[in-house]
Amino acid sequence: MSNKQSDFGLIGLAVMGQNLVLNVESRGFQVSVYNRTEATTEAFIAANPGKKLVGAKTLEEFVQSLAKPRKIQIMVKAGAPVDQVIEQLIPLLDKDDIVIDGGNSLYTDTERRDAYLASKGLRFIGAGVSGGEEGARKGPSIMPGGPLSTWEVMKPIFESISAKVDGEPCVIHIGPGGAGHYVKMVHNGIEYGDMQLICEAYSLFKAAGFSTDEMAAIFNEWNEGELQSYLIQITAKALEQKDPETGKPIVDVILDKAGQKGTGQWTLINAAENAVVISTINAAVEARVLSSQKKARVAASRQLQGPKIELSVEKKALVAKVHDALYASKVISYTQGFDLIKTMGDKKNWGLDLGGIASIWRGGCIIRARFLNRITDAFRTDPALANLMLDPFFKDLLNRTQQSWREVVALAVSNGIPVPAFSASLAYYDSYRTERLPANLLQAQRDFFGAHTYERVDKPEGQFFHTDWPEVIG
Amino acid sequence: MSNKQSDFGLIGLAVMGQNLVLNVESRGFQVSVYNRTEATTEAFIAANPGKKLVGAKTLEEFVQSLAKPRKIQIMVKAGAPVDQVIEQLIPLLDKDDIVIDGGNSLYTDTERRDAYLASKGLRFIGAGVSGGEEGARKGPSIMPGGPLSTWEVMKPIFESISAKVDGEPCVIHIGPGGAGHYVKMVHNGIEYGDMQLICEAYSLFKAAGFSTDEMAAIFNEWNEGELQSYLIQITAKALEQKDPETGKPIVDVILDKAGQKGTGQWTLINAAENAVVISTINAAVEARVLSSQKKARVAASRQLQGPKIELSVEKKALVAKVHDALYASKVISYTQGFDLIKTMGDKKNWGLDLGGIASIWRGGCIIRARFLNRITDAFRTDPALANLMLDPFFKDLLNRTQQSWREVVALAVSNGIPVPAFSASLAYYDSYRTERLPANLLQAQRDFFGAHTYERVDKPEGQFFHTDWPEVIG
Repeated sequence: MSNKQSDFGLIGLAVMGQNLVLNVESRGFQVSVYNRTEATTEAFIAANPGKKLVGAKTLEEFVQSLAKPRKIQIMVKAGAPVDQVIEQLIPLLDKDDIVIDGGNSLYTDTERRDAYLASKGLRFIGAGVSGGEEGARKGPSIMPGGPLSTWEVMKPIFESISAKVDGEPCVIHIGPGGAGHYVKMVHNGIEYGDMQLICEAYSLFKAAGFSTDEMAAIFNEWNEGELQSYLIQITAKALEQKDPETGKPIVDVILDKAGQKGTGQWTLINAAENAVVISTINAAVEARVLSSQKKARVAASRQLQGPKIELSVEKKALVAKVHDALYASKVISYTQGFDLIKTMGDKKNWGLDLGGIASIWRGGCIIRARFLNRITDAFRTDPALANLMLDPFFKDLLNRTQQSWREVVALAVSNGIPVPAFSASLAYYDSYRTERLPANLLQAQRDFFGAHTYERVDKPEGQFFHTDWPEVIG
Repeated sequence: MSNKQSDFGLIGLAVMGQNLVLNVESRGFQVSVYNRTEATTEAFIAANPGKKLVGAKTLEEFVQSLAKPRKIQIMVKAGAPVDQVIEQLIPLLDKDDIVIDGGNSLYTDTERRDAYLASKGLRFIGAGVSGGEEGARKGPSIMPGGPLSTWEVMKPIFESISAKVDGEPCVIHIGPGGAGHYVKMVHNGIEYGDMQLICEAYSLFKAAGFSTDEMAAIFNEWNEGELQSYLIQITAKALEQKDPETGKPIVDVILDKAGQKGTGQWTLINAAENAVVISTINAAVEARVLSSQKKARVAASRQLQGPKIELSVEKKALVAKVHDALYASKVISYTQGFDLIKTMGDKKNWGLDLGGIASIWRGGCIIRARFLNRITDAFRTDPALANLMLDPFFKDLLNRTQQSWREVVALAVSNGIPVPAFSASLAYYDSYRTERLPANLLQAQRDFFGAHTYERVDKPEGQFFHTDWPEVIG
């Protein structure tokens, strides 16, 4: 063990924690580690000889090994375990020590902990960390929330360990309190959307009779163009992968039953609370729910009828159209996600930098993509942009792709191929660009049965009218 | 003022409260009333001479005027006002007196109040009351939740004041605690869905060039058939109505900006919490949100392009197809709503009678419809029915309508007419009846970036596998 005190401490040596420690150490920092099960700490230290690591047997020893103000990152399961570790830490810490929660905590928990630790004279950062195992080791995208002054202390370490794109670190101070974990939550919702949209493209190609190798080639080609992104890239790799046991493409032996971890649901709940439409993310979460009901679907498939699938289309033309449908739907998903972030940021006075948020997602995280530069540009050019679709780049993109997009949805619908996220995205686009929606009839109904009143097209808004509707029998 | 003590008391003389009082009184009960503003009480008593009504000037006087066990219904704005009235009542009441909250309270508030009043030796009923002003006066649908023994005491009054269909009162004991208000909440979500589906049918007819009178005739005709319902009926009446000021159809002068009161959003939040798909209701709530962004839509309509609308269809054929699309989508909406009620009922051990719930919605409430008999039959025949679509009647209906339904959605999508609820319903149908969804690719992605593991089609479920995926650069 070193005599020098460590620059950074980490509690919780599961796979994400271990990789983060190795990342921090590799940037020149000495790191102390603590894990509830001592054997895990010992094994980790033994597996990484010659590194600037300090393995502590007790939490007391761990805290004593850190230079002040101490910087302690907790990487344990979100929920009660985070609170337990915080309670154990509090009596051991000194004023102004910094506790960082790097797990997928719900932002309201982060707000509560922020206030609690502040009341104890301690400092707290709730940081979303994206990128999985590999990101943690080589450079994740980090979304830290907390006081600006605490961020300034953490900045050198965070910037040093984060992913870099064009020389810029994929971390900025998101905002106070729960802002970091909030933005990470919406990031995960957007990730759900991206994945589902790719799956819908895949299901169309499959229905059209493409081989798995043909599909891998399409995604590889797309990864060279506007759709370039980590998820498109790994989709191609996944489609190329063969199952050693059967020799078949691995995707053909994987069960179509998707799991989820809750951040998608949190995003839906928050969007409903704030009356923000995130229909693409919604469709993606719903698709996972329905996928998990495999037995029910198998039974229903024998009873509920569909049309005969007749996708006698020219393959090259179909690929181009599905490309456009995927791209346009992806734009809608990000439009909705940023609308949600903006709405919540305004409500909470978080002072969010939407362009900056898009920019730190360009590297390290699961949704990293070339495309994010365009979102950064859009919000840098017009920080008050009401809706991403109206930025000149995205407007042109949507106007250019809308025809193919609707042809793809109509084709899928006619052939009984479920494309819930493509459909929901297009319905949002068509609703948002419709000057007169049928809500006039809805207002008539509401006034009819509940005297809710309505506004008129020929009077100033804010004046409310009521009709004395005829009586209805029965 | 009468010397006899009253059978029933009501606090809160807004329009719903007044109408409920007159309803209860008309069934032979003597009713005491109290309102915070005394003048309202006086005016109400003065406007209803010769009735068995007791107007109390103070809450003390009101409580003293009631026979024991006292039965006091609160009809004030949901939220804090209900708690305030309860706090004022508690010191004035005696053991086993019954307090009824007849407002649109959130079911978790009802659970809290139920436990609180029980701790004070008092009894509580949280009752959803549907049917608006007219229902309150002539007979609403009532959804009471609370202990069975308390229901037994209230039953004679509730059954007497409720709507009747085929001689059966539109009220049953829903379940304990918050069950009544919970079911009322989902009822409101379903109401949102029904209204939006009608609006989508209307928007298709409008795009196809139908006159408002032609549309009124269609809805009048539909009200004679399988779609017979209060909402179809008032839609026809609303379309017939002319604006006295301009002579135009009233719907043409009503602004397309719909309001909402929160129960739709509560339903979405609860569905997300329970991982139940209610995509039709979701689309309906989202449509209201987008309708409310009128200015943004007007601006976007000048920038975001759509196809040229070419609905050169034979009118009679279109009407038949839209009928089927509306009917099938409505079945999906109720399927999802009942799935949510069932899921929550099972989780809470509420012992819900799903067939009974459908039956008490046949009269009094906004969603009353002939169709609900079929839902009652389905759950009476098979109380464990997993999904309403698989009931023989609904299965046949969907198999018979699915072709027209998808033609309508494809037509709308091709013409840029937003039909979010028709689309979402169809996507649910097609997803649920698809044996193999593309979630296999999604599981490959999740295992690729997060080592989440997957199950295999050729191994028993519950065994999890992981692939050692190739490394990805960048």
